Amino acid sequence: MNGRDKYAIIVAGGKGLRMGGDIPKQFMLLENRPVLMHAIQAFYGYDSTIRIFLVLPHEQKEYWEKLCAEYAFSVPHQTVLGGATRFHSVKNGLAAIEQSLHDKEHNALIGVHDGVRPLVDRELIAAVYDLADSDIAAFPAIPVVDSMRKLTADRQTTFSVDRSEYFLVQTPQVFKADALFAAYRQDYDSRFTDDVSVVEASGICRPVRVEGRRENIKITTLADLTLAQALMQCRI
Amino acid sequence: MNGRDKYAIIVAGGKGLRMGGDIPKQFMLLENRPVLMHAIQAFYGYDSTIRIFLVLPHEQKEYWEKLCAEYAFSVPHQTVLGGATRFHSVKNGLAAIEQSLHDKEHNALIGVHDGVRPLVDRELIAAVYDLADSDIAAFPAIPVVDSMRKLTADRQTTFSVDRSEYFLVQTPQVFKADALFAAYRQDYDSRFTDDVSVVEASGICRPVRVEGRRENIKITTLADLTLAQALMQCRI
Repeated sequence: MNGRDKYAIIVAGGKGLRMGGDIPKQFMLLENRPVLMHAIQAFYGYDSTIRIFLVLPHEQKEYWEKLCAEYAFSVPHQTVLGGATRFHSVKNGLAAIEQSLHDKEHNALIGVHDGVRPLVDRELIAAVYDLADSDIAAFPAIPVVDSMRKLTADRQTTFSVDRSEYFLVQTPQVFKADALFAAYRQDYDSRFTDDVSVVEASGICRPVRVEGRRENIKITTLADLTLAQALMQCRI
Repeated sequence: MNGRDKYAIIVAGGKGLRMGGDIPKQFMLLENRPVLMHAIQAFYGYDSTIRIFLVLPHEQKEYWEKLCAEYAFSVPHQTVLGGATRFHSVKNGLAAIEQSLHDKEHNALIGVHDGVRPLVDRELIAAVYDLADSDIAAFPAIPVVDSMRKLTADRQTTFSVDRSEYFLVQTPQVFKADALFAAYRQDYDSRFTDDVSVVEASGICRPVRVEGRRENIKITTLADLTLAQALMQCRI
């Protein structure tokens, strides 16, 4: 890869409502450190010159600062306030990046990552940034190994679908800056569940798939946290 | 649940070609014991009177017997030879059960389980058998938490789909014996990826969903084995 500037937006918008507890999942402890710190650390480990923008709900900013002090977390990053949906949170992250960009950097690479994917590894981050460097937009995804069923239109029952036609999409998703900025100028649509879907809807380019990692899980329940803990211990 | 007789067919048909090694994945070691023994043990732990039929490829039968001796594996089970596809393997398992059935037992419950899902727990097994007892056919499934993409018809690229419309299906899938026997009298169709899809295609009944467990993973790669190892250690 040439010397393009690299940015990362880590989105930690989740209120953790699905966890059944009061602590949002991005702050729960994994190997004695909040989940979010693992995610941020992975990007810093990939490239210590990467500029990291952490998007957090307004009411979590102070708590996060306290955590950083408590855990002596020193990875450089800038905090940005989140929006009403993931789309709006990423948009806020992009606005913060745009302010710090020089004109020449519109060819920078911007990765967007779920704050609740703490097990992402440097090799996967590198693979996605590398592919975005040549192909404008790249994302990691894994094949489906379980049988799959789909709800009927009335949502009353389900029917079998062919799993070989589907992929489970992960993050980081990485884009050339100008493509991502342009895509996020669109109006919000509830079908925007990730950045690839936003860029795709813009028609700017066709995002390209990288093989994801099964262990790059998204922590959405307490059981996922146990799973992540187990995976972390295996790594060491 | 009333006193219906219970059967389990554990399908270990996989040649393990995806593992990149020579040992089929059902025989790889997890906590110092072959994967398959964990799966069988879970059913025995659920109900020690359950009759277990293990379906194995012909060329693996001798190896399995050696393993049982080596690991002093004493859970009672009967070995049945597998067929060309999963459908044919289950059909062979059903034929073996039918031979041992008394007429009155056509109301028995038969569960079918992937031999490479060693982390299934007794509570989940119980939940599926219980629901099949009242609803004829039941299966565990979990919601999709990652964004999802589907291949286009020409399989050249992918597009976003709404993940909330999909479920990932696990095993054990449990059925009243007469329904499962009848369903397996159909001709083979390549869309039969699991037993629910076979029963569904027969039109006999509408299988009902139980909440699955995220840790009830299917071991299809070496990375999955590492994941299972980590999950096992966490359990103890």
